[in-house]
Amino acid sequence: MEDPIIRFISQYITLTGEEKELLKGQNVIRAFPRDTILLAEGDSPRTCYFVIKGCVRAYYLKDGEERNTDFYFEQQTIVPINYNTDRPSPHFLACLEDCMLAEGDPERNRKLLEQIPALSKMVGQLNEQLLTQKTIAFDQFKQHSPEERYQLLLENQPELLKRIPLYHLASYLGITHISLSRIRKRLAQKNNGRHQ
Amino acid sequence: MEDPIIRFISQYITLTGEEKELLKGQNVIRAFPRDTILLAEGDSPRTCYFVIKGCVRAYYLKDGEERNTDFYFEQQTIVPINYNTDRPSPHFLACLEDCMLAEGDPERNRKLLEQIPALSKMVGQLNEQLLTQKTIAFDQFKQHSPEERYQLLLENQPELLKRIPLYHLASYLGITHISLSRIRKRLAQKNNGRHQ
Repeated sequence: MEDPIIRFISQYITLTGEEKELLKGQNVIRAFPRDTILLAEGDSPRTCYFVIKGCVRAYYLKDGEERNTDFYFEQQTIVPINYNTDRPSPHFLACLEDCMLAEGDPERNRKLLEQIPALSKMVGQLNEQLLTQKTIAFDQFKQHSPEERYQLLLENQPELLKRIPLYHLASYLGITHISLSRIRKRLAQKNNGRHQ
Repeated sequence: MEDPIIRFISQYITLTGEEKELLKGQNVIRAFPRDTILLAEGDSPRTCYFVIKGCVRAYYLKDGEERNTDFYFEQQTIVPINYNTDRPSPHFLACLEDCMLAEGDPERNRKLLEQIPALSKMVGQLNEQLLTQKTIAFDQFKQHSPEERYQLLLENQPELLKRIPLYHLASYLGITHISLSRIRKRLAQKNNGRHQ
């Protein structure tokens, strides 16, 4: 099987055989059991991740409650908000499933960019892509009602709904557990009505 | 007065005298009267902007209603969602005030990057910064109630509230006009109570 990191990078730039060997030799892949806290609020984030297998959840603690803001799956990069600063992290990162993650830190990344300069082109394209995705997601969130948001998830990312437990979904949709239950009940009734 | 574009770029990279002259000679600054539609839904966005003076509003049309998603002020860059693709724009861009904007297009930007290679470093840093800002804004939006969102705006960006008419603010906060009126009434009563 091809190295997942090399497969990911090859979407953006063409790597030479030598560069591929260099990347394989990095030895940065680690296994983390489910519920591992990768980053806690107040920590200084010095690690970024690339998800090889599993799911990582980003959340904030507000009034003692966890508010989920992001779920990261296979082939996605995780750059904590304050990774590029020396400020403490406002959020947590935790493994929602058993995970295989590739880790990066500023020093290692700097060295890699020196050794494989084309990587900076990839980082640029990736950031541009992530910015566009984030903007679209935020714009859609603002425009839609909680019920519409849930329906969009059902339609566009059904596989995501299979992997995220319901009790983690409400805050991600910006609503309470009770509202989410009501929405699901209403939609189930509507669908039953349609099938009769 | 120093050229606003050069002032902006100099926050990121050091420009030589020659490069400054090159930038000054670009002649890309244009005036747009208030209410000019810079980009309409369905158009192919081929222009990005830098706000020298004024305010630009991004909005979507949903069920015949305008839903505001972003307001851009002085010293901010505007890159439409589909600027880097050939897909039609899902949103509009309109001048909320009389504006002075610097315009860029992919061809001109490509040439400039060739002539001033250090600019690509700026673009990289800028995208990274914009991604972080967008992520923080989205995370906060999800975590806060509409009333809290309005209060945060009052506390952190009072100058923004002075320039955005109230009827444009409700959809930006993800609520209806009626809800915003109720929130403002409730806060006014609370503040009156506090001052008595």
